[in-house]
Amino acid sequence: ADDGVVVGDASNFRRVVDVHALGNYTFGTKRARGEKDSSAAARLLRMKTQYEREGKRRSVGAICMVSQHRTPHILLLQITPTTFKLPGGRLRAGEGEREGLARKMQNKLQPEREDGLGAYEFDVGDQVATWYRTSFEPQMYPYLPAHITKPKEEHKIFIVHLPEKAAFAVPKNLKLLAVPLFELYGNPEKYGSEIASIPHLLSRYRLNLD
Amino acid sequence: ADDGVVVGDASNFRRVVDVHALGNYTFGTKRARGEKDSSAAARLLRMKTQYEREGKRRSVGAICMVSQHRTPHILLLQITPTTFKLPGGRLRAGEGEREGLARKMQNKLQPEREDGLGAYEFDVGDQVATWYRTSFEPQMYPYLPAHITKPKEEHKIFIVHLPEKAAFAVPKNLKLLAVPLFELYGNPEKYGSEIASIPHLLSRYRLNLD
Ligand SMILES: [Zn+2]
Ligand SMILES: [Zn+2]
Ligand SMILES: [Zn+2]
Ligand SMILES: [Zn+2]
Repeated sequence: ADDGVVVGDASNFRRVVDVHALGNYTFGTKRARGEKDSSAAARLLRMKTQYEREGKRRSVGAICMVSQHRTPHILLLQITPTTFKLPGGRLRAGEGEREGLARKMQNKLQPEREDGLGAYEFDVGDQVATWYRTSFEPQMYPYLPAHITKPKEEHKIFIVHLPEKAAFAVPKNLKLLAVPLFELYGNPEKYGSEIASIPHLLSRYRLNLD
Repeated sequence: ADDGVVVGDASNFRRVVDVHALGNYTFGTKRARGEKDSSAAARLLRMKTQYEREGKRRSVGAICMVSQHRTPHILLLQITPTTFKLPGGRLRAGEGEREGLARKMQNKLQPEREDGLGAYEFDVGDQVATWYRTSFEPQMYPYLPAHITKPKEEHKIFIVHLPEKAAFAVPKNLKLLAVPLFELYGNPEKYGSEIASIPHLLSRYRLNLD
Protein backbone atom coordinates (compact mmCIF):
# COMPACT_ATOMS: atom_id res chain seq x y z
CA ALA A 1 0.00 0.00 0.00
CA ASP A 2 1.13 3.57 -0.62
CA ASP A 3 0.51 4.45 2.97
CA GLY A 4 1.78 1.40 4.78
CA VAL A 5 4.51 1.54 7.38
CA VAL A 6 6.28 4.87 7.53
CA VAL A 7 9.55 5.07 9.36
CA GLY A 8 11.40 8.32 9.84
CA ASP A 9 10.25 11.88 10.03
CA ALA A 10 6.69 11.72 8.79
CA SER A 11 6.51 15.49 8.61
CA ASN A 12 8.95 15.36 5.70
CA PHE A 13 7.23 12.44 4.04
CA ARG A 14 5.36 13.54 0.95
CA ARG A 15 2.80 10.87 0.26
CA VAL A 16 2.33 9.57 -3.22
CA VAL A 17 -0.94 7.99 -4.35
CA ASP A 18 -1.01 5.77 -7.44
CA VAL A 19 -4.01 6.52 -9.62
CA HIS A 20 -4.79 4.02 -12.37
CA ALA A 21 -6.46 4.61 -15.72
CA LEU A 22 -10.26 4.45 -15.93
CA GLY A 23 -9.68 1.98 -18.78
CA ASN A 24 -8.27 -0.54 -16.28
CA TYR A 25 -11.79 -0.99 -14.90
CA THR A 26 -15.06 -2.32 -16.25
CA PHE A 27 -18.39 -1.48 -14.67
CA GLY A 28 -21.18 -4.03 -14.97
CA THR A 29 -24.43 -4.03 -13.04
CA LYS A 30 -25.91 -6.09 -10.26
CA ARG A 31 -29.27 -6.17 -8.48
CA ALA A 32 -30.46 -2.97 -6.84
CA ARG A 33 -29.33 -2.16 -3.32
CA GLY A 34 -32.01 -0.38 -1.39
CA GLU A 35 -31.46 3.29 -1.02
CA LYS A 36 -33.51 3.16 2.15
CA ASP A 37 -35.29 6.48 2.03
CA SER A 38 -37.70 8.04 -0.40
CA SER A 39 -36.63 11.59 0.46
CA ALA A 40 -34.05 13.63 2.35
CA ALA A 41 -36.67 14.37 5.00
CA ALA A 42 -37.39 10.64 5.45
CA ARG A 43 -33.66 10.03 5.83
CA LEU A 44 -33.28 12.63 8.57
CA LEU A 45 -36.29 11.23 10.38
CA ARG A 46 -34.81 7.73 10.24
CA MET A 47 -31.53 9.13 11.61
CA LYS A 48 -33.38 10.68 14.51
CA THR A 49 -35.11 7.42 15.40
CA GLN A 50 -31.82 5.53 15.18
CA TYR A 51 -30.06 8.16 17.30
CA GLU A 52 -32.64 7.79 20.05
CA ARG A 53 -32.12 4.03 20.04
CA GLU A 54 -28.36 3.73 19.41
CA GLY A 55 -26.70 7.10 19.97
CA LYS A 56 -24.22 8.83 17.69
CA ARG A 57 -24.26 7.65 14.10
CA ARG A 58 -20.82 6.71 12.77
CA SER A 59 -20.43 6.78 9.01
CA VAL A 60 -17.63 6.63 6.48
CA GLY A 61 -17.02 7.71 2.90
CA ALA A 62 -14.39 6.80 0.30
CA ILE A 63 -12.39 8.97 -2.05
CA CYS A 64 -11.50 6.63 -4.95
CA MET A 65 -9.52 8.00 -7.85
CA VAL A 66 -9.11 7.01 -11.48
CA SER A 67 -7.13 8.78 -14.18
CA GLN A 68 -8.52 9.90 -17.53
CA HIS A 69 -6.92 12.35 -19.98
CA ARG A 70 -4.11 12.46 -17.42
CA THR A 71 -6.43 14.17 -14.94
CA PRO A 72 -7.57 12.72 -11.61
CA HIS A 73 -11.26 11.81 -11.41
CA ILE A 74 -13.27 10.89 -8.31
CA LEU A 75 -15.83 8.07 -8.26
CA LEU A 76 -19.26 9.36 -7.20
CA LEU A 77 -22.59 7.64 -6.86
CA GLN A 78 -25.44 9.55 -8.41
CA ILE A 79 -28.51 8.82 -6.29
CA THR A 80 -30.95 11.17 -8.00
CA PRO A 81 -30.31 13.50 -10.94
CA THR A 82 -29.21 16.20 -8.47
CA THR A 83 -27.79 14.15 -5.56
CA PHE A 84 -24.28 12.77 -5.43
CA LYS A 85 -22.46 10.90 -2.71
CA LEU A 86 -19.22 9.16 -2.00
CA PRO A 87 -19.36 5.36 -1.73
CA GLY A 88 -19.67 4.46 1.94
CA GLY A 89 -22.36 4.47 4.59
CA ARG A 90 -23.15 3.74 8.18
CA LEU A 91 -20.98 1.58 10.40
CA ARG A 92 -22.46 -1.23 12.44
CA ALA A 93 -22.25 -1.09 16.22
CA GLY A 94 -18.65 -1.82 17.23
CA GLU A 95 -17.45 -2.11 13.64
CA GLY A 96 -14.00 -0.70 12.82
CA GLU A 97 -13.95 2.27 10.45
CA ARG A 98 -11.63 0.78 7.84
CA GLU A 99 -13.25 -2.63 8.06
CA GLY A 100 -16.72 -1.08 7.68
CA LEU A 101 -15.66 1.03 4.73
CA ALA A 102 -14.17 -2.00 2.96
CA ARG A 103 -17.50 -3.80 3.50
CA LYS A 104 -19.40 -0.85 2.04
CA MET A 105 -17.09 -0.74 -0.98
CA GLN A 106 -17.76 -4.42 -1.66
CA ASN A 107 -21.47 -3.74 -1.34
CA LYS A 108 -21.30 -1.01 -3.92
CA LEU A 109 -18.71 -2.36 -6.36
CA GLN A 110 -18.06 -6.06 -5.89
CA PRO A 111 -19.65 -8.41 -8.46
CA GLU A 112 -22.04 -10.95 -6.90
CA ARG A 113 -20.63 -14.43 -6.95
CA GLU A 114 -22.34 -17.52 -5.64
CA ASP A 115 -19.09 -18.94 -4.36
CA GLY A 116 -18.14 -15.73 -2.54
CA LEU A 117 -14.64 -15.98 -4.00
CA GLY A 118 -12.58 -13.39 -5.81
CA ALA A 119 -13.44 -10.44 -3.58
CA TYR A 120 -11.42 -7.36 -4.41
CA GLU A 121 -9.25 -5.98 -1.73
CA PHE A 122 -10.09 -2.35 -1.12
CA ASP A 123 -7.07 -0.80 0.48
CA VAL A 124 -8.38 1.82 2.92
CA GLY A 125 -5.66 4.45 3.37
CA ASP A 126 -5.43 7.83 5.09
CA GLN A 127 -8.31 9.41 6.87
CA VAL A 128 -8.50 12.89 5.34
CA ALA A 129 -11.51 14.57 6.95
CA THR A 130 -14.12 14.31 9.69
CA TRP A 131 -17.52 15.95 9.29
CA TYR A 132 -20.03 16.48 12.10
CA ARG A 133 -23.79 16.66 12.07
CA THR A 134 -25.00 18.69 15.03
CA SER A 135 -28.76 18.36 14.52
CA PHE A 136 -31.06 16.35 12.28
CA GLU A 137 -30.58 18.73 9.38
CA PRO A 138 -28.76 18.30 6.06
CA GLN A 139 -25.95 20.69 7.08
CA MET A 140 -22.68 19.20 8.33
CA TYR A 141 -19.41 20.86 9.38
CA PRO A 142 -15.75 19.85 8.84
CA TYR A 143 -15.04 20.72 12.50
CA LEU A 144 -16.90 20.29 15.75
CA PRO A 145 -18.74 23.58 16.24
CA ALA A 146 -18.24 25.38 19.56
CA HIS A 147 -20.32 24.14 22.50
CA ILE A 148 -21.35 20.94 20.72
CA THR A 149 -20.43 18.02 22.91
CA LYS A 150 -22.78 15.43 21.44
CA PRO A 151 -22.77 15.48 17.66
CA LYS A 152 -25.53 13.41 16.10
CA GLU A 153 -23.20 11.98 13.48
CA GLU A 154 -19.47 11.68 12.94
CA HIS A 155 -18.64 11.11 9.28
CA LYS A 156 -15.05 10.21 8.37
CA ILE A 157 -13.59 10.28 4.89
CA PHE A 158 -10.75 8.05 3.78
CA ILE A 159 -8.71 7.65 0.65
CA VAL A 160 -9.41 4.18 -0.72
CA HIS A 161 -6.86 2.76 -3.14
CA LEU A 162 -8.51 0.77 -5.92
CA PRO A 163 -6.96 -2.47 -7.14
CA GLU A 164 -4.82 -1.90 -10.25
CA LYS A 165 -7.42 -3.54 -12.50
CA ALA A 166 -10.93 -4.75 -11.74
CA ALA A 167 -14.32 -5.75 -13.12
CA PHE A 168 -16.75 -3.91 -10.86
CA ALA A 169 -20.51 -4.29 -10.64
CA VAL A 170 -22.74 -1.39 -9.63
CA PRO A 171 -26.27 -1.85 -8.18
CA LYS A 172 -28.59 -1.08 -11.04
CA ASN A 173 -30.51 1.59 -9.15
CA LEU A 174 -27.33 3.63 -8.77
CA LYS A 175 -25.16 5.38 -11.30
CA LEU A 176 -21.40 5.52 -10.85
CA LEU A 177 -19.65 8.57 -12.28
CA ALA A 178 -16.00 9.54 -12.60
CA VAL A 179 -15.85 13.31 -12.16
CA PRO A 180 -12.66 15.34 -12.67
CA LEU A 181 -11.24 17.32 -9.75
CA PHE A 182 -11.58 20.62 -11.60
CA GLU A 183 -15.34 20.02 -11.96
CA LEU A 184 -15.74 19.49 -8.20
CA TYR A 185 -13.57 22.44 -7.21
CA GLY A 186 -15.61 25.46 -6.16
CA ASN A 187 -18.87 23.67 -6.96
CA PRO A 188 -20.67 22.98 -3.63
CA GLU A 189 -23.98 24.10 -5.16
CA LYS A 190 -23.97 21.06 -7.42
CA TYR A 191 -22.04 18.45 -5.41
CA GLY A 192 -22.48 19.57 -1.80
CA SER A 193 -19.77 20.91 0.51
CA GLU A 194 -18.25 17.53 1.31
CA ILE A 195 -17.58 16.47 -2.27
CA ALA A 196 -16.60 19.97 -3.40
CA SER A 197 -13.86 20.03 -0.75
CA ILE A 198 -12.09 16.92 -2.09
CA PRO A 199 -9.58 18.89 -4.18
CA HIS A 200 -8.41 20.59 -0.95
CA LEU A 201 -8.11 17.28 0.88
CA LEU A 202 -5.98 15.80 -1.90
CA SER A 203 -3.77 18.81 -2.36
CA ARG A 204 -1.16 17.51 0.10
CA TYR A 205 -0.59 14.35 -1.98
CA ARG A 206 1.37 13.76 -5.10
CA LEU A 207 -0.93 11.85 -7.43
CA ASN A 208 0.96 9.42 -9.60
CA LEU A 209 -1.32 9.16 -12.65
CA ASP A 210 -1.23 6.35 -15.20
CA ALA B 1 7.08 18.13 18.15
CA ASP B 2 3.59 16.72 17.68
CA ASP B 3 4.56 15.41 14.28
CA GLY B 4 8.04 14.13 14.93
CA VAL B 5 9.09 10.58 14.33
CA VAL B 6 6.20 8.27 13.61
CA VAL B 7 6.77 4.56 13.81
CA GLY B 8 4.13 2.04 12.93
CA ASP B 9 1.21 2.16 10.58
CA ALA B 10 0.92 5.83 9.75
CA SER B 11 -2.44 5.24 8.08
CA ASN B 12 -3.89 4.45 11.49
CA PHE B 13 -2.11 7.32 13.19
CA ARG B 14 -4.51 10.07 14.05
CA ARG B 15 -2.44 13.17 14.47
CA VAL B 16 -2.98 15.42 17.39
CA VAL B 17 -2.04 19.10 17.32
CA ASP B 18 -1.65 21.00 20.58
CA VAL B 19 -3.26 24.42 20.40
CA HIS B 20 -2.42 26.84 23.18
CA ALA B 21 -4.55 29.67 24.59
CA LEU B 22 -4.37 33.09 22.95
CA GLY B 23 -3.67 34.41 26.46
CA ASN B 24 -0.30 32.62 26.42
CA TYR B 25 0.92 35.16 23.85
CA THR B 26 1.51 38.88 23.83
CA PHE B 27 1.68 40.89 20.63
CA GLY B 28 3.85 43.99 20.61
CA THR B 29 4.91 45.96 17.56
CA LYS B 30 8.14 46.47 15.68
CA ARG B 31 9.20 48.61 12.71
CA ALA B 32 7.27 48.21 9.48
CA ARG B 33 8.27 45.48 7.07
CA GLY B 34 7.79 46.61 3.52
CA GLU B 35 4.78 45.15 1.85
CA LYS B 36 6.52 45.55 -1.46
CA ASP B 37 3.62 46.43 -3.73
CA SER B 38 1.15 49.28 -3.79
CA SER B 39 -1.56 47.19 -5.49
CA ALA B 40 -2.47 43.65 -6.53
CA ALA B 41 -1.71 44.60 -10.13
CA ALA B 42 1.78 45.84 -9.16
CA ARG B 43 2.38 42.57 -7.33
CA LEU B 44 1.45 40.45 -10.35
CA LEU B 45 3.68 42.57 -12.59
CA ARG B 46 6.60 42.12 -10.19
CA MET B 47 5.96 38.35 -10.20
CA LYS B 48 6.12 38.30 -13.97
CA THR B 49 9.43 40.14 -14.04
CA GLN B 50 10.85 37.79 -11.41
CA TYR B 51 9.57 34.75 -13.30
CA GLU B 52 11.33 35.84 -16.46
CA ARG B 53 14.56 36.24 -14.52
CA GLU B 54 14.37 33.33 -12.07
CA GLY B 55 11.68 30.87 -13.15
CA LYS B 56 8.94 29.37 -11.00
CA ARG B 57 8.19 31.24 -7.81
CA ARG B 58 8.23 29.05 -4.70
CA SER B 59 6.32 30.35 -1.73
CA VAL B 60 5.09 29.09 1.61
CA GLY B 61 2.36 29.90 4.11
CA ALA B 62 1.77 28.97 7.75
CA ILE B 63 -1.34 27.80 9.53
CA CYS B 64 -0.79 28.84 13.18
CA MET B 65 -3.48 28.11 15.70
CA VAL B 66 -4.43 29.57 19.05
CA SER B 67 -7.36 28.67 21.24
CA GLN B 68 -9.95 31.10 22.56
CA HIS B 69 -13.34 30.27 24.10
CA ARG B 70 -12.27 26.67 23.52
CA THR B 71 -12.45 27.21 19.77
CA PRO B 72 -9.50 27.05 17.37
CA HIS B 73 -8.48 30.35 15.80
CA ILE B 74 -6.08 30.93 12.91
CA LEU B 75 -3.52 33.75 12.85
CA LEU B 76 -4.00 35.97 9.81
CA LEU B 77 -2.22 39.09 8.67
CA GLN B 78 -4.54 41.84 7.55
CA ILE B 79 -2.75 43.73 4.78
CA THR B 80 -5.54 46.10 3.79
CA PRO B 81 -9.05 46.35 5.27
CA THR B 82 -10.20 43.70 2.75
CA THR B 83 -7.04 41.61 2.22
CA PHE B 84 -5.90 38.81 4.48
CA LYS B 85 -3.00 36.43 4.18
CA LEU B 86 -1.24 33.68 6.02
CA PRO B 87 2.19 34.50 7.45
CA GLY B 88 4.79 33.34 4.94
CA GLY B 89 6.20 34.49 1.65
CA ARG B 90 8.64 33.76 -1.10
CA LEU B 91 11.52 31.36 -0.71
CA ARG B 92 15.02 32.35 -1.71
CA ALA B 93 16.76 30.46 -4.50
CA GLY B 94 17.80 27.07 -3.16
CA GLU B 95 16.22 27.65 0.25
CA GLY B 96 14.46 24.71 1.94
CA GLU B 97 10.72 25.07 2.41
CA ARG B 98 10.62 24.55 6.17
CA GLU B 99 13.75 26.61 6.73
CA GLY B 100 12.35 29.44 4.60
CA LEU B 101 9.01 29.37 6.38
CA ALA B 102 10.71 29.52 9.80
CA ARG B 103 12.66 32.56 8.54
CA LYS B 104 9.45 34.22 7.38
CA MET B 105 7.77 33.53 10.72
CA GLN B 106 10.66 35.20 12.54
CA ASN B 107 10.36 38.13 10.16
CA LYS B 108 6.69 38.55 10.95
CA LEU B 109 6.58 37.66 14.66
CA GLN B 110 10.01 37.70 16.27
CA PRO B 111 10.82 40.73 18.45
CA GLU B 112 13.88 42.66 17.25
CA ARG B 113 16.83 42.22 19.52
CA GLU B 114 20.22 43.78 19.09
CA ASP B 115 21.96 40.70 20.38
CA GLY B 116 20.06 38.35 18.07
CA LEU B 117 19.43 36.04 21.00
CA GLY B 118 16.21 34.50 22.19
CA ALA B 119 14.77 33.63 18.79
CA TYR B 120 11.63 31.57 19.04
CA GLU B 121 11.66 28.19 17.50
CA PHE B 122 8.84 27.86 15.00
CA ASP B 123 8.20 24.18 14.60
CA VAL B 124 7.17 23.67 10.98
CA GLY B 125 5.02 20.54 10.81
CA ASP B 126 2.93 18.83 8.13
CA GLN B 127 2.55 20.20 4.67
CA VAL B 128 -1.22 20.28 4.19
CA ALA B 129 -1.78 21.81 0.74
CA THR B 130 -0.12 22.92 -2.47
CA TRP B 131 -1.62 25.70 -4.59
CA TYR B 132 -0.59 26.52 -8.16
CA ARG B 133 -0.64 29.76 -10.08
CA THR B 134 -0.88 29.06 -13.80
CA SER B 135 -0.73 32.62 -15.12
CA PHE B 136 -0.02 36.05 -13.68
CA GLU B 137 -3.53 36.41 -12.35
CA PRO B 138 -4.88 36.39 -8.78
CA GLN B 139 -6.54 32.97 -9.23
CA MET B 140 -4.73 29.90 -7.88
CA TYR B 141 -5.78 26.22 -7.78
CA PRO B 142 -5.29 23.50 -5.12
CA TYR B 143 -4.27 21.08 -7.89
CA LEU B 144 -2.20 21.34 -11.04
CA PRO B 145 -4.76 22.01 -13.80
CA ALA B 146 -4.70 19.70 -16.83
CA HIS B 147 -2.11 20.48 -19.50
CA ILE B 148 -0.17 22.85 -17.25
CA THR B 149 3.43 21.73 -17.14
CA LYS B 150 5.02 24.99 -16.04
CA PRO B 151 3.11 26.64 -13.23
CA LYS B 152 4.24 30.20 -12.49
CA GLU B 153 4.09 29.64 -8.76
CA GLU B 154 3.96 26.71 -6.37
CA HIS B 155 2.60 27.74 -2.99
CA LYS B 156 2.83 25.22 -0.13
CA ILE B 157 0.99 25.48 3.16
CA PHE B 158 2.27 23.99 6.40
CA ILE B 159 1.01 23.69 9.92
CA VAL B 160 3.36 25.68 12.15
CA HIS B 161 3.30 24.84 15.84
CA LEU B 162 3.72 27.93 17.99
CA PRO B 163 5.87 27.83 21.09
CA GLU B 164 3.78 27.22 24.21
CA LYS B 165 4.18 30.85 25.35
CA ALA B 166 5.72 33.82 23.58
CA ALA B 167 6.01 37.59 23.39
CA PHE B 168 5.62 38.29 19.69
CA ALA B 169 6.18 41.56 17.83
CA VAL B 170 4.25 42.42 14.68
CA PRO B 171 5.49 44.94 12.06
CA LYS B 172 3.49 48.07 12.71
CA ASN B 173 2.17 48.31 9.15
CA LEU B 174 0.48 44.94 9.54
CA LYS B 175 -2.36 43.79 11.71
CA LEU B 176 -2.39 40.30 13.18
CA LEU B 177 -5.81 38.74 13.75
CA ALA B 178 -6.94 35.51 15.36
CA VAL B 179 -10.00 34.37 13.41
CA PRO B 180 -12.12 31.37 14.47
CA LEU B 181 -12.46 28.42 12.11
CA PHE B 182 -16.22 28.83 11.85
CA GLU B 183 -15.75 32.38 10.53
CA LEU B 184 -13.40 31.16 7.77
CA TYR B 185 -15.54 28.19 6.78
CA GLY B 186 -17.59 28.84 3.66
CA ASN B 187 -16.31 32.42 3.43
CA PRO B 188 -13.99 32.65 0.38
CA GLU B 189 -15.60 35.96 -0.63
CA LYS B 190 -14.08 37.63 2.41
CA TYR B 191 -10.91 35.63 3.03
CA GLY B 192 -10.05 34.16 -0.38
CA SER B 193 -10.18 30.48 -1.35
CA GLU B 194 -6.91 29.53 0.30
CA ILE B 195 -7.78 30.78 3.79
CA ALA B 196 -11.42 29.67 3.55
CA SER B 197 -10.26 26.09 2.90
CA ILE B 198 -8.27 25.83 6.16
CA PRO B 199 -11.13 24.14 8.08
CA HIS B 200 -11.03 21.33 5.49
CA LEU B 201 -7.27 20.97 5.74
CA LEU B 202 -7.42 20.68 9.53
CA SER B 203 -10.34 18.32 9.61
CA ARG B 204 -8.09 15.24 9.64
CA TYR B 205 -6.40 16.36 12.88
CA ARG B 206 -7.49 16.17 16.45
CA LEU B 207 -6.91 19.62 17.91
CA ASN B 208 -5.95 19.46 21.54
CA LEU B 209 -7.16 22.85 22.80
CA ASP B 210 -6.00 24.52 26.00
ZN1 LIG C 1 -1.98 1.73 -13.09
ZN1 LIG D 1 -19.59 11.26 2.75
ZN1 LIG E 1 -0.92 25.26 26.11
ZN1 LIG F 1 -0.72 31.42 1.32
